[in-house]
Amino acid sequence: MNISSAFDSGNIICDSCDDPSNVQLRIRVDNESHFFQWFHFRVTGAADQACCFHLTNASEAAYLEGWDDYQAVASYDRDHWFRVPTSYDDGVLKIEHEPALDSVWYAYFAPYSMERHLDLVATAAQGDGVRYEHLGHTLDGQDMDLLVIGEETPDKRKCWFIARQHPGETMAEWWMEGFLDRLLDADEPIARELLKKAVFYVVPNMNPDGSRRGHLRTNAVGVNLNRAWSDASTDQSPEVFFVKQRMKQAGVDFALDVHGDEALPYNFIAGAEGVGGWTARLDQLTEAFKSMYVTANPDFQTEFGYGRDEPGSSDLRKATDYIAETFDCLSMTLEMPFKDNANAPDEITGWSPARCRLLGASVLDPLYRLIDDLR
Amino acid sequence: MNISSAFDSGNIICDSCDDPSNVQLRIRVDNESHFFQWFHFRVTGAADQACCFHLTNASEAAYLEGWDDYQAVASYDRDHWFRVPTSYDDGVLKIEHEPALDSVWYAYFAPYSMERHLDLVATAAQGDGVRYEHLGHTLDGQDMDLLVIGEETPDKRKCWFIARQHPGETMAEWWMEGFLDRLLDADEPIARELLKKAVFYVVPNMNPDGSRRGHLRTNAVGVNLNRAWSDASTDQSPEVFFVKQRMKQAGVDFALDVHGDEALPYNFIAGAEGVGGWTARLDQLTEAFKSMYVTANPDFQTEFGYGRDEPGSSDLRKATDYIAETFDCLSMTLEMPFKDNANAPDEITGWSPARCRLLGASVLDPLYRLIDDLR
Amino acid sequence: MNISSAFDSGNIICDSCDDPSNVQLRIRVDNESHFFQWFHFRVTGAADQACCFHLTNASEAAYLEGWDDYQAVASYDRDHWFRVPTSYDDGVLKIEHEPALDSVWYAYFAPYSMERHLDLVATAAQGDGVRYEHLGHTLDGQDMDLLVIGEETPDKRKCWFIARQHPGETMAEWWMEGFLDRLLDADEPIARELLKKAVFYVVPNMNPDGSRRGHLRTNAVGVNLNRAWSDASTDQSPEVFFVKQRMKQAGVDFALDVHGDEALPYNFIAGAEGVGGWTARLDQLTEAFKSMYVTANPDFQTEFGYGRDEPGSSDLRKATDYIAETFDCLSMTLEMPFKDNANAPDEITGWSPARCRLLGASVLDPLYRLIDDLR
Amino acid sequence: MNISSAFDSGNIICDSCDDPSNVQLRIRVDNESHFFQWFHFRVTGAADQACCFHLTNASEAAYLEGWDDYQAVASYDRDHWFRVPTSYDDGVLKIEHEPALDSVWYAYFAPYSMERHLDLVATAAQGDGVRYEHLGHTLDGQDMDLLVIGEETPDKRKCWFIARQHPGETMAEWWMEGFLDRLLDADEPIARELLKKAVFYVVPNMNPDGSRRGHLRTNAVGVNLNRAWSDASTDQSPEVFFVKQRMKQAGVDFALDVHGDEALPYNFIAGAEGVGGWTARLDQLTEAFKSMYVTANPDFQTEFGYGRDEPGSSDLRKATDYIAETFDCLSMTLEMPFKDNANAPDEITGWSPARCRLLGASVLDPLYRLIDDLR
Repeated sequence: MNISSAFDSGNIICDSCDDPSNVQLRIRVDNESHFFQWFHFRVTGAADQACCFHLTNASEAAYLEGWDDYQAVASYDRDHWFRVPTSYDDGVLKIEHEPALDSVWYAYFAPYSMERHLDLVATAAQGDGVRYEHLGHTLDGQDMDLLVIGEETPDKRKCWFIARQHPGETMAEWWMEGFLDRLLDADEPIARELLKKAVFYVVPNMNPDGSRRGHLRTNAVGVNLNRAWSDASTDQSPEVFFVKQRMKQAGVDFALDVHGDEALPYNFIAGAEGVGGWTARLDQLTEAFKSMYVTANPDFQTEFGYGRDEPGSSDLRKATDYIAETFDCLSMTLEMPFKDNANAPDEITGWSPARCRLLGASVLDPLYRLIDDLR
Repeated sequence: MNISSAFDSGNIICDSCDDPSNVQLRIRVDNESHFFQWFHFRVTGAADQACCFHLTNASEAAYLEGWDDYQAVASYDRDHWFRVPTSYDDGVLKIEHEPALDSVWYAYFAPYSMERHLDLVATAAQGDGVRYEHLGHTLDGQDMDLLVIGEETPDKRKCWFIARQHPGETMAEWWMEGFLDRLLDADEPIARELLKKAVFYVVPNMNPDGSRRGHLRTNAVGVNLNRAWSDASTDQSPEVFFVKQRMKQAGVDFALDVHGDEALPYNFIAGAEGVGGWTARLDQLTEAFKSMYVTANPDFQTEFGYGRDEPGSSDLRKATDYIAETFDCLSMTLEMPFKDNANAPDEITGWSPARCRLLGASVLDPLYRLIDDLR
Repeated sequence: MNISSAFDSGNIICDSCDDPSNVQLRIRVDNESHFFQWFHFRVTGAADQACCFHLTNASEAAYLEGWDDYQAVASYDRDHWFRVPTSYDDGVLKIEHEPALDSVWYAYFAPYSMERHLDLVATAAQGDGVRYEHLGHTLDGQDMDLLVIGEETPDKRKCWFIARQHPGETMAEWWMEGFLDRLLDADEPIARELLKKAVFYVVPNMNPDGSRRGHLRTNAVGVNLNRAWSDASTDQSPEVFFVKQRMKQAGVDFALDVHGDEALPYNFIAGAEGVGGWTARLDQLTEAFKSMYVTANPDFQTEFGYGRDEPGSSDLRKATDYIAETFDCLSMTLEMPFKDNANAPDEITGWSPARCRLLGASVLDPLYRLIDDLR
Repeated sequence: MNISSAFDSGNIICDSCDDPSNVQLRIRVDNESHFFQWFHFRVTGAADQACCFHLTNASEAAYLEGWDDYQAVASYDRDHWFRVPTSYDDGVLKIEHEPALDSVWYAYFAPYSMERHLDLVATAAQGDGVRYEHLGHTLDGQDMDLLVIGEETPDKRKCWFIARQHPGETMAEWWMEGFLDRLLDADEPIARELLKKAVFYVVPNMNPDGSRRGHLRTNAVGVNLNRAWSDASTDQSPEVFFVKQRMKQAGVDFALDVHGDEALPYNFIAGAEGVGGWTARLDQLTEAFKSMYVTANPDFQTEFGYGRDEPGSSDLRKATDYIAETFDCLSMTLEMPFKDNANAPDEITGWSPARCRLLGASVLDPLYRLIDDLR
């Protein structure tokens, strides 16, 4: 049996794989950081053996509640990912699986590679009315890709969608696929009507370096980008620096920052109620958006979540608060589960790429209903 | 140059095709009927010739307003259909086109063959929770196909969808494709939630004989099925007879009868306000459904349509009125254009199969919002 | 349980289907003919019931040896066809199957509908260097479709491929799909080189009327087209008449007539050795072609077949003999099994559409090796 | 305008991109090596600008003849690659192109990413009769992937196919796709017959590290693997070490090492005539294989190539010679062009992935004809 992780978003350290029933692994820490929880590794030569993978440093991971009721994902073809029995005891995460083939992949959630990202951007950039923009380079030299969809005229609402500030939250980019597919479908009537009234600024991946490196939360130098919005810099957080710059140039009437949550088995939205400039208008918009998203897609819900921010408790280092405060606009964080939607569990896949895509497509519905009210 | 129509849903009589610039054609009348308007023919050997097809009996067609601002559809590959210049003058419909290839098809709207119908039913019947039911035979010996989707339990709402009573209204079956695709997508959250509360009874094609024969409005013996609901019989209108029988057995809490309208360039719904048992409840449900359908899909609208039926003006020979009266339930007719959606015209395709499919998929949204109120 | 056959190429008469274990069926005779053997029917409402279908007139079918070791095909989705237990005893063909779903199709071999034929022709006609030609109408008014592939110049070899003179031999048109796919693949080097030296005249379906009517061997008026070549007429055998006419105009340097054989479980070629003008040249070409076809595709073989025709025993009513005699060229009949390739049996599918396609694609190899020798 | 190459197989150094008409670039040297010629970069923000990219160190590249008549490839969607005007003058390679979009990729040949490699292996490993084997790790920690196809029995011929020892020769892995697709097609008769007589040992990528790093010829530490066969070691050339080891264990009756040639615009084979143990048998096998490959695929030819090795001139550091000498078997190197097939040029794509795949599929034909003679 062999363990490897030298591929896009791979992350594991193998301490011992002599005994399939007691494989000793550790998750590698994000570079220059203390965060870790994302793992992604390949096991070869273990067909028909009852394997037990022990992630022995699980107790030091970023979100211990993330391990409760968590099931890891596995795949033979790197396309269909299914859940495998997983438990967390005595500080160790145990994944038990008897693979049917001699090559199998395991991950924290279905991975989304930078190659797939580049394909997504390349395909979208060929759409009618789509303009690609290069915002700058990351510290590893990768491109910060922006898609501008629709003609930029002053009267139009400026709607920003950004995803994967935390690179291990791959569900955020699966969500982007569904969102972009629907938005760019020339026959789609809601997309067509929205594009008469809005321009879309879409950053499908805010953190290419962390993505490729197999990080959970940070960029190449260990910076948590969603704590960098108040003081972004080209040398520590160019990803945020460039996006902020472009936001200021274009304006923002709406912003959605797409994330995954390690602990909560629900899809939910966190608003920006804590910011200083919070108004009844923003409050009503936020609540309306959430309830309309529930209507459009019942995998979304409003019962469970982070709770409402106290007035004045904003953290302007975070994208959502920073944008709400700076642009006085509807600004929200969308969270999806690593685990499952506990209201509608799927035993085989848990929360999955297919469901992320549908949730991404559905976001056009609440936006369409509110577009005239955004300014 | 040659003209042919001896294929599924073919309909044309060629009086003369010696001169490409003056081809003389007539539409064949529905068997044992006076209705006609559907045409579907193939032209071979006319590449790079400026053709003008004259449909010389157009002035006797069922709906003369159907020819105003109408553009015929053409296709080289029988998959992509595009509009070609068409005009109606002096009682003649003229289609002008210089085909690029020696084999090209023309039709009143994108055809939907019985082979495609059988594929649609076969694919759907393999879905989880789907049961195929044979309702009986048509007069030509074809099968009346019913799909029962979801487990039949007493508490569930019984939702009926029927299409293409008028066989030339092929948009109705394209709509069915989109509707069934979404309803049977196991990852779709609205379909999933609906199936907890509803059973679907779906008849994708109410009139197989008229479909294959290339009729506009009637079955094999010239019966307009949507005037046969009050006195359906096995010898004249078995298609309706069998469906009525099954409706009485299963019950009906919701019914949508999907059609195309020759004249109006809009998608709209006609209700059953004229029936004797009309109630405020039914009125509210109808209005709510329509406004929610607008929200879900802006290709639908409520401004243009047939107007509200006068109280007591119902025609129980029609499916919608018959069902509303018999089952005291929300019962509606959906109409789609042969022409285009004048609110959002597409110069290349006009109203098209792709847009029909999206409108069919969208119907789940208003239904989901109203499902609890249907009984 | 219900039985139906009112669809493209459907053929069955149901005498009784009250008892699933003893369904009484008969095959309908070709119109104005005594031939029959093709069957194609749909069974609905029989899920999870052990069915036994008795084809009670099997002993009067055209080829009794066809029933030995024969297994009927079935399909739920009309795409994947699998074999089901079949036996022939006391003059009755028994098909035993417990269908898993309430809608299932059975046939003598995987059907090939006229809709699929029209799609095949439409797609091919869009290829570079392809010209569609309308040869005339059948007696039922369908089009006789010819594809001319490559520019017609005098120096090029004229290669004719015709299929399905006998409409129930659907394998012949599946073969055409593979042949045309490869021939029209712009990157295919053998197709490219062949098209420098040859023009292809392809008639994918010689008998549209028999195909749609569900015949085994004859056209709309009961004529066996492969006995009509010496005296084809527009009123009895226009299909052959038009093709002969076009052959005389274009010339023929090579002809392959594609068929299926009811009895022999092998792919083989029958030559034209019986014709008066048989020469050593033609003999060598025939033998070379056959042995090169074996090399290109081991599903083809030369051990089993009809045996060599005696000198002077030709039947000029048959396409192969007629063409060899008239054009002094390599002219052959290809036969494929209804049953299986006994040298390489596939228990699940028997001889199948997929294997037909591969055999059709492979024909380019021997042709390419012999193209310079054809004249 | 921006230039980037921080992605799989990216390779460029940008000295200046201020002036689109005079972009100054250099190709990065393979790590710890002096080889370079592979380039792969992305240009953003240059839509509708007439760009001229100058590769200023082209004169120091490994194969200067490679630049004569060479055209670089470009792509907007990373799937379809087309040739763009390229010239070599005064030691500089100039690529001239006015991109239609703001994001475009350029490369030496259509890239083949490690993600695609992993997908290829994962898909193949799911095939019937396929067993994945992990041979060991590369110096960068990637997996050396082996596919064993067919049951390993002593009587069967052991046929080895290895590709991309030189990682910049991506055509070698495109070739592998076509080869594996055909070999694993369960309906393919030649594959089926071959698998009765042969076991296939397939290494689709001999040099994962060089591939991901964007190298031309060497592995992570600058070793040219095709000069490492006589003294492979785990610390300098584990890729070769592991494959040699497995070859010795399994035996070799046939070996094909798939490459690309920078200079010659032809597909050809180089044999192992220079080895000490060269025999008439091996000579005949080599010549037979080559001529049969020509027959199977006329994109292959025997007129142009490296010329016959002098007796005794073998270089056992090369795979082909090493294997021929060690195993006394038919062992050959296949070369494909970076440029085009000059015998059948394609102005739009040049030699392309689609043509590589067809050439890979065709290799089964000569192998099938010779399989019995290999031992």
